[in-house]
Amino acid sequence: MKPLQTNFNLLTYLYERKEIVEDTLNKSIPRGNPTFIYDSIRYSLSAGGKRIRPILCLASCELAGGTMEMALPTACALEMIHTMSLIHDDLPAMDNDSYRRGKPTNHIIYGEDLAILAGDALLAYAFEFIATQTKNVPADLIVKVIAQVAHSVTTSGLVGGQIIDLSSEGKSDTTLETLNFIHIHKTGALLEAAVLSGALLAGAKEKDMNRFLRYAQNIGLAFQIIDDVLDIISTEEKLGKSIGKDLKTQKATYPSFWGVEESIKQAELLVEEAKEEILYFDNKAIPLIAIADFIVNRNN
Amino acid sequence: MKPLQTNFNLLTYLYERKEIVEDTLNKSIPRGNPTFIYDSIRYSLSAGGKRIRPILCLASCELAGGTMEMALPTACALEMIHTMSLIHDDLPAMDNDSYRRGKPTNHIIYGEDLAILAGDALLAYAFEFIATQTKNVPADLIVKVIAQVAHSVTTSGLVGGQIIDLSSEGKSDTTLETLNFIHIHKTGALLEAAVLSGALLAGAKEKDMNRFLRYAQNIGLAFQIIDDVLDIISTEEKLGKSIGKDLKTQKATYPSFWGVEESIKQAELLVEEAKEEILYFDNKAIPLIAIADFIVNRNN
Repeated sequence: MKPLQTNFNLLTYLYERKEIVEDTLNKSIPRGNPTFIYDSIRYSLSAGGKRIRPILCLASCELAGGTMEMALPTACALEMIHTMSLIHDDLPAMDNDSYRRGKPTNHIIYGEDLAILAGDALLAYAFEFIATQTKNVPADLIVKVIAQVAHSVTTSGLVGGQIIDLSSEGKSDTTLETLNFIHIHKTGALLEAAVLSGALLAGAKEKDMNRFLRYAQNIGLAFQIIDDVLDIISTEEKLGKSIGKDLKTQKATYPSFWGVEESIKQAELLVEEAKEEILYFDNKAIPLIAIADFIVNRNN
Repeated sequence: MKPLQTNFNLLTYLYERKEIVEDTLNKSIPRGNPTFIYDSIRYSLSAGGKRIRPILCLASCELAGGTMEMALPTACALEMIHTMSLIHDDLPAMDNDSYRRGKPTNHIIYGEDLAILAGDALLAYAFEFIATQTKNVPADLIVKVIAQVAHSVTTSGLVGGQIIDLSSEGKSDTTLETLNFIHIHKTGALLEAAVLSGALLAGAKEKDMNRFLRYAQNIGLAFQIIDDVLDIISTEEKLGKSIGKDLKTQKATYPSFWGVEESIKQAELLVEEAKEEILYFDNKAIPLIAIADFIVNRNN
């Protein structure tokens, strides 16, 4: 393996991409009447987060030879969909969460009816945004990207994951197989769509698509394992504060099967495999490699 | 005006198209695990109805020179979206309806969580279905159709209409302007998308698109006026049975502004204007003309 270029600063990279994505997201939804529905949509869309899905989409498009501009509408659409899934998952009939990232959830501020409708609108805006804003990409590839992104939301994607997650709640006999199913669908499908759609937009070759797919699948699962680990570790660090939500709700997690140490090891293995897949692209792969490392090394 | 061909039987036409649409819808959603989410989706998707949106889409595609096959995926996608909007509108946080077409609503059978997720999945399936199943249509037109259909669901479309409808509930000072806003968005936008997407798929010329647009806008409003009228008339006919829901909830309706007789007259005027727009296409316009007439003459 050749040594890769080393003057790459991931934090600067992530910061710059996040700014571009948030700026575009901010302009993506029109203002109009009645103002409260637009406020409700903007409230959740601007609530922050790592914007990891859009950043992955932009990075894989560039790795496959495309430009950031080609992927920006799809990248933002992925964040709209992610936001929709958070708004709906937080509803009383679902996970019943009142706070997210320290702020009241959408339905707490705007009511359940608006929260449901804000989510529906965001899902529709996502496809409208890809269809109307994608430039300099052949139309047949745009159609493929829409198919890929839509598929990741169906019962074969995040809806399917959320359903099994809800039906596993409070059960002590959840198997590792079920836990994998939940996360491959609930978190993995959209991360996979992010990486694959970026590559598709750049016209990546079929054989390269398999590399992107395996990269995405591995970091998707690693991402969730580390999420579970952080729920425990940040609890221990912040001793005296509220304990981890997963423990409180007796939710099956990777650490509950493997323990914290082995979970981190498994996540590291997955990330190594992910990186192996794309080392093939040499220096161009640096951002995606750094993002993979970031997934296991992050602390939030 | 030349006399149009007269051996056209609307009821046979509607019946045959409905069969084709329902057959395609039935095959459109995969079967899988967990079965209950697929059951929930199928329960509402197969609950019947006139299938007027898909039929309009097929008819306008054929009028514009396309084939039924070209429009069938989009036609079914429109019905998936319509079904999603019914499932979500019926939720306790929204209109709180327990029955629809004599059957318990989705959340009554499957619970609120599944009803929300079934709707989300249907909206995603709609776009996946257009993107993967549309054949013999140039990709740039498929992208335009997706944009059109998605737009009709956003806050500029049915979500916007439902929001104003919810916020007008129980208010006695709803203006005719607000009532028009509600229906142009809540019912009109998707009917408009049905007619326009059919024409788009066939590659209709820009100048003809305006005829399709005005046809769609007029029948959309006429459709809603007659819905309001039927809510009253069917009450009077079925004396002794439950009275009309709109009256019970003191909902603003067209008859509450104009009375029943004038409402029917307004709907007839709109339908005449709709027909004028497409008479230009001669015999090819017969199905859409007959559908326009059907909208004011139907009894359910």
